[in-house]
Order: sequence, then C-alpha cells, then structure tokens
Amino acid sequence: MPLVYVTRHLHFSAAHRLHNESIDAETNAALYGACNNPLGHGHNYELEVTVAGEPDPVTGMVIDLKELKDIVQREVIDRVDHRFLNYEVECLQGVVPTAENIVVAFWHLLKDQFTSCRLYELKLYETPRNMAVYRGE
Amino acid sequence: MPLVYVTRHLHFSAAHRLHNESIDAETNAALYGACNNPLGHGHNYELEVTVAGEPDPVTGMVIDLKELKDIVQREVIDRVDHRFLNYEVECLQGVVPTAENIVVAFWHLLKDQFTSCRLYELKLYETPRNMAVYRGE
Amino acid sequence: MPLVYVTRHLHFSAAHRLHNESIDAETNAALYGACNNPLGHGHNYELEVTVAGEPDPVTGMVIDLKELKDIVQREVIDRVDHRFLNYEVECLQGVVPTAENIVVAFWHLLKDQFTSCRLYELKLYETPRNMAVYRGE
Amino acid sequence: MPLVYVTRHLHFSAAHRLHNESIDAETNAALYGACNNPLGHGHNYELEVTVAGEPDPVTGMVIDLKELKDIVQREVIDRVDHRFLNYEVECLQGVVPTAENIVVAFWHLLKDQFTSCRLYELKLYETPRNMAVYRGE
Amino acid sequence: MPLVYVTRHLHFSAAHRLHNESIDAETNAALYGACNNPLGHGHNYELEVTVAGEPDPVTGMVIDLKELKDIVQREVIDRVDHRFLNYEVECLQGVVPTAENIVVAFWHLLKDQFTSCRLYELKLYETPRNMAVYRGE
Amino acid sequence: MPLVYVTRHLHFSAAHRLHNESIDAETNAALYGACNNPLGHGHNYELEVTVAGEPDPVTGMVIDLKELKDIVQREVIDRVDHRFLNYEVECLQGVVPTAENIVVAFWHLLKDQFTSCRLYELKLYETPRNMAVYRGE
Repeated sequence: MPLVYVTRHLHFSAAHRLHNESIDAETNAALYGACNNPLGHGHNYELEVTVAGEPDPVTGMVIDLKELKDIVQREVIDRVDHRFLNYEVECLQGVVPTAENIVVAFWHLLKDQFTSCRLYELKLYETPRNMAVYRGE
Repeated sequence: MPLVYVTRHLHFSAAHRLHNESIDAETNAALYGACNNPLGHGHNYELEVTVAGEPDPVTGMVIDLKELKDIVQREVIDRVDHRFLNYEVECLQGVVPTAENIVVAFWHLLKDQFTSCRLYELKLYETPRNMAVYRGE
Repeated sequence: MPLVYVTRHLHFSAAHRLHNESIDAETNAALYGACNNPLGHGHNYELEVTVAGEPDPVTGMVIDLKELKDIVQREVIDRVDHRFLNYEVECLQGVVPTAENIVVAFWHLLKDQFTSCRLYELKLYETPRNMAVYRGE
Repeated sequence: MPLVYVTRHLHFSAAHRLHNESIDAETNAALYGACNNPLGHGHNYELEVTVAGEPDPVTGMVIDLKELKDIVQREVIDRVDHRFLNYEVECLQGVVPTAENIVVAFWHLLKDQFTSCRLYELKLYETPRNMAVYRGE
Repeated sequence: MPLVYVTRHLHFSAAHRLHNESIDAETNAALYGACNNPLGHGHNYELEVTVAGEPDPVTGMVIDLKELKDIVQREVIDRVDHRFLNYEVECLQGVVPTAENIVVAFWHLLKDQFTSCRLYELKLYETPRNMAVYRGE
Repeated sequence: MPLVYVTRHLHFSAAHRLHNESIDAETNAALYGACNNPLGHGHNYELEVTVAGEPDPVTGMVIDLKELKDIVQREVIDRVDHRFLNYEVECLQGVVPTAENIVVAFWHLLKDQFTSCRLYELKLYETPRNMAVYRGE
C-alpha cells in the first residue's frame, strides 16, 4: 500500500512577548530586541499539519480532511486563537513562545490524536517569511 | 503627461484589543467577541501605500520607491511595528484600533509627506482575508 | 466622516460547463473550447466582497466582519459551494456561468443585504490568473 | 557530484465527485458529505512535480525545465484538465478521486518518464489549504 | 446592461538598467543606486490586464479570456520576455525602463486592440512588493 | 532535546544568461532557447534558507532569526542582488548560472557560517513556478 502525506493549513491570530523570566531585563532586551516589548506584539500564525498513512481502500482517504481539521481546531486553534500566548495558553507556560517552542508544544498536543495515520510534521509560519518545522525528532 | 499610480507594500506585526472604554464590559464583549480578549491578540499587518502622479521626464519615476518606502517606514511603521496598538501608538489614542480606524489614522500621518505626487490610497490587510481601504474621501 | 472600504475574502469549490442551450453544439464547442466539455469541469472560486461606509463612531467598524462573512455565506456561498453551477443554482438558471455572469448574479443576491453600508464591489477569481469584477454599474 | 531537486508547478481545473460505487448511497453521503453531491463539484488543482538528479556538467541542468513541463503536460495535464475525473480519466477508473488516490495515480503515469533523473515527489493541492504528497514509498 | 471588468494575469522575465543617457554618470548613480548597475539586473514581471465591457448576451463573456491572453501575449509578452528592456524592446527606446514608463508604453501597445470592450487598467508588478498602475489618464 | 528546522525567506533581483562558453553558439541556442539571449534576462529570486538544531534552553531559539538573516544577507544577497550573475559574482565564475548551479554555489558560501545549528536546506525559486533545492548531498 502506498504511503501518502496529507496536509491541512489552519491559522490563528495571537499576541506574544519574547521574554525569559529567569534572566534579567537587560539580557532579555539584548536577546530579543523589539520582540521583548513589555506589552507584546502579535502575528497571524499559519499552521500546516501533515499526517502520514495509507489511503483506506474503501474511502480513498488517509484521514477525512474534516476530521483532521476538527482535531487541530479543538486541540490547538481553540486554545491559542485571539490569546496572549505567554499568559493564557497552558501548554506554553514556562517556555519562551518562540516559533520553535510553540511548534514543539503543539506536537505534544497532537501526536496521540490520530488512529488511522501518524502525525508527520508541523510547520508554523510566524510571518510569511519566517517559519519553524518539527517532525518529532 | 500620463497619471500613474505607484504602490509599495510594507508590513508590521502588532498586538491590539478591540475595546471601547466609553461603553460597559458586557457591550464590549458582545460587540467584539474574541477580539475583546483583555490581554489582546495580534496580527501581521500588510500595508499597501499608493501615490498618484506624473512620471518625471528625466527620472521616469513618480517617486523614488526607496524614498516612498523610507517615508512610510519613518511616519508609520516605526511607530507601530512590534507595539500594542491601543497603548503605545499616539495616533490611535482615543479610538478603537479596528482596521477602519487604523487606516484612517495612517492617512493623516502620510497625506502631507509627498511633494512630487499625492497620496491616493491606503490598503491595510489585518489578515490575508480581511482588509480596509481609505482614499481620503 | 471618512468613507472606508472593507473587504472580506471567501471561497467555494464548484463545477460548471460553459454552454448556451439556445445555440447549436458546434457553435458552443467553437466558442468555449475545453470549457464546453459536456460533463463539466471545476474551480476553486475566490470571492472578495467590498462594502463602503463610514466607521460607526462607537464601534469603529463599517460593518462587523463576522456579520459581513455571515451574510455572504448565507446568501451566496451556501447556495453554490460544492454544486454544479449550471444545474443546481437558482440565480444562474438561464445564463451561461461565465465569471462575468456569476459575479453579476451574486451582486443581485447581496446588494440589498446591508444597512450600515452599501455593497461597493464584487471580485471573483475563477483561477488565480483570471477574474471578473462588478460594481453595479 | 551534488544531488539537486528540481520542481515545476503546473495546474489544471477539473470536476470530481467523492463516491464509492461499491458501497450504498447513505454510507457515501455520510462519508463524503458535500463532496458526495451527485452532479459533482470542482477545483483548481496545483501539481508540483519534483525530480532528483545530478546537474549535467555541461548544461548545469538536472533536466531542462521545458522538457520537465512538456512531460507532465503530456502524461498528466492533457488527460485531466477540464475533465470530470470520475468518468473521463482512464488512470482514475475504479478508484475514488480523493487527492490521495489522484496523486498516487499520477505517480504511476510519471515514474518511468525520466532518464537523466528520477521522480522524487508529487505534491497535489486540491485547494490552497489542502494537499496530498506521494514519494513512491 | 451591466458593465463588468475582466482581468488576465500574465508574466515575463526580463533584464533592465535604470539609466538616463542624457545625464552624467554620477547623477545616474545617485538617482538609481543599485538599479544603475551597468550590466543590469532583472525581474519576474507580473502584468495584470483589465478590460471593461458588457457581457455579450449570447456568450456571457466581455471577451474570450483566451483571446485576451493571445492579444497581450502577441502585442506585449512576445516583445519583452527574456529580453534586456533597454536595448531590445522598440517601445521602450528613449525612455528609462522604470515600472512607470513600462506600463505607459504597454498601454499604447494594447489600447486599440480590443473591439468588444475597452482597455481599462494595466497593473505591472516589478517585484511582489512594488507595482505601477496606468488607466490611460 | 527536540530537533527543529528554522527557515528564513530572502529575495534578490538579478540578471543572468544561460550560456556555456566551452560549447558553440548553435548548441547553446538549442540547449537554452530564449534563456540564451546574448544580453541576458532576469528574475526576482526567492531564497529560503533552512537550518536545523536544538532550541537553546534559555533563549528558546535554534538561531536568532535576525542573525540568520544577517548571515545570508552578508554572505549571499549582498553579492548577487542587482547583479548580472554571469559576470559579477565570484562564486558563479566558470559555471552556467542555472538554478541548480546557483543553489549549490550558495550552499558553499553558507555551510560553515553556523555554530549553534547546521545548514539543512536551500530552496531557490527562479520564478514562482520553478525552483531548485540542495541539501548538501
């Protein structure tokens, strides 16, 4: 049976601040520059979720795309959309919300949600020109 | 002489909260929904600035695109990029930072900045699927 | 008060066939080429709906973008998404479903739906490289 | 010699219906929802074809991009563009035309067409937000 | 009868140099910066051609999109694609090939080519972030 | 520690000519077609640089995106932007500037520039529909 990768794009808008509370203010300012602005700033995040599996011989689908969307909506988007990531999102408590840390945190929310296939890759665009990818490695 | 329109795209990332302090909390929540989240959320804003004028017979330019970019960078982007629009941006004090109000405020920052041409249109994408346009009417 | 234009993008997927039943098969084939294929073909249509109005002094909005989306979803998208435009869409009966005719038909579905603002422009992309625009002229 | 991957994007517009004739109507309707509409619907499909190989020391090319385009045009696009995939496309007979099944069928049309390089990956966007990828695994 | 605007996107790749031979080298260098590089540089230009007219009552088309494409291909694209605009393009002789001057020159190549409709607007993207528009004013 | 991939998009505009001086004019013309035009043509190149590494436990970053951008700007973009690739770019001397050869040359400029992470992939779009990828294999 062929192994096929299926991807669904979703998006959310959120505020964040790059700041590590365990280090002093000057170091934070030097490390993160404008991204350390105390009141925060924000992005339209674009999340691309890819699963891998064999198309079901009857349905022709690795996973129903609506089910894929609903899982990501429920497990990730509903928890972060229109939120301030540093203060309102449980899976990001204790970490600096860089794209790298966010995409790893989302992986743990999603990795056990699929039965007919497995989570293969998460791609997170913070802006149209910057992104982070995690494959569970 | 031909009248030509020249456009430059710029972008910025910012946080905002839709909230009108002159009305009560319940009305604000009903009006703005998730956009009323007290800690705010954010966007990658895309700003398209269009000027109109006649190409200079010597240079062939309505305006040097680098000059156009520098003016918008100085008058607008440097004031809003990586900021929380409600609290840190002077031209937005006293107004709810909807895309409509932001684009009108930016018009007033830019309208007297051009000598070889005139400001014709500002287009502000709040997300790739929502935008507001103002032409000074 | 400033006049601001607000745009919301929506999309739908549909099948259609370019064919005029009042003319003969050879003329249809010559006129429409591959688009005259008897079983039809299809597109991911992208619809950009623009309304014009003055931002409300309290809300800062010309129209609540969610309300704008809900109106277009109900009046247009729910009637055409995942449909064969020639046979299943009432507002397109008796016309050839070219982008030109579709965008005019959608105008009539939407033009009386707004109270705080007026419908200004509909832009319909049939493919990323072809589109038709109607402004009610 | 370096191993380089070269990609060409092509597109086609087609109609399809998600429906498995070997199962009953109610199950089909439940499985595929709006995509089971008897008359079908359609998409602007975007196909990204990637080959892998070593650049020729004289030409500097893994494959002439025009040749790559011509092969995909002849073997795939000419067979599916402006067609109803369920009824008019030989390589899709007997399978439900999901993105997964289409991309695997296209792989078999293309895999033996290259001599200077090998087919590495096919990526098929059904909409700008959904896609399937096959690498011959 | 409704007035509908129909747009077709086309593209070409070309080299150019911003340089006015009637002024001295220092002034050219100061005016155009890196764009004055003697050997030139280049762009993927994107041209959006819009015509305005009434859909034909029989065909439902303002103009056959294939005819629109063929006219622009023949009158514009075939003359500029894969060319050095300063030296190899007749309609640009004697002008500096800024986006402003190019779009006006293209207008004159196209304005008398349409019978069922009239040329309404040319939009020329020099890069995804810079463009010039001409409407024959 | 998780392995995360971080990507930054950059762009440049340049002219080039596909031509191999070691073979005769007729063969060059036959091989490269319009791309062999003696005066050259040009593109808006888009370069996507991906590095792989473990997010730093303190900063949450694989690499500061500003540092990533600065390295690529200095080592690559400043050497090729607004240049004629065949004649003005040292790393491309002696090779035909196909996308394949360019992306391999850029790899050698960048591969030893990173300390906290390693260069994983370079993706070079010559046009929005053509690209070459190199991973150092």
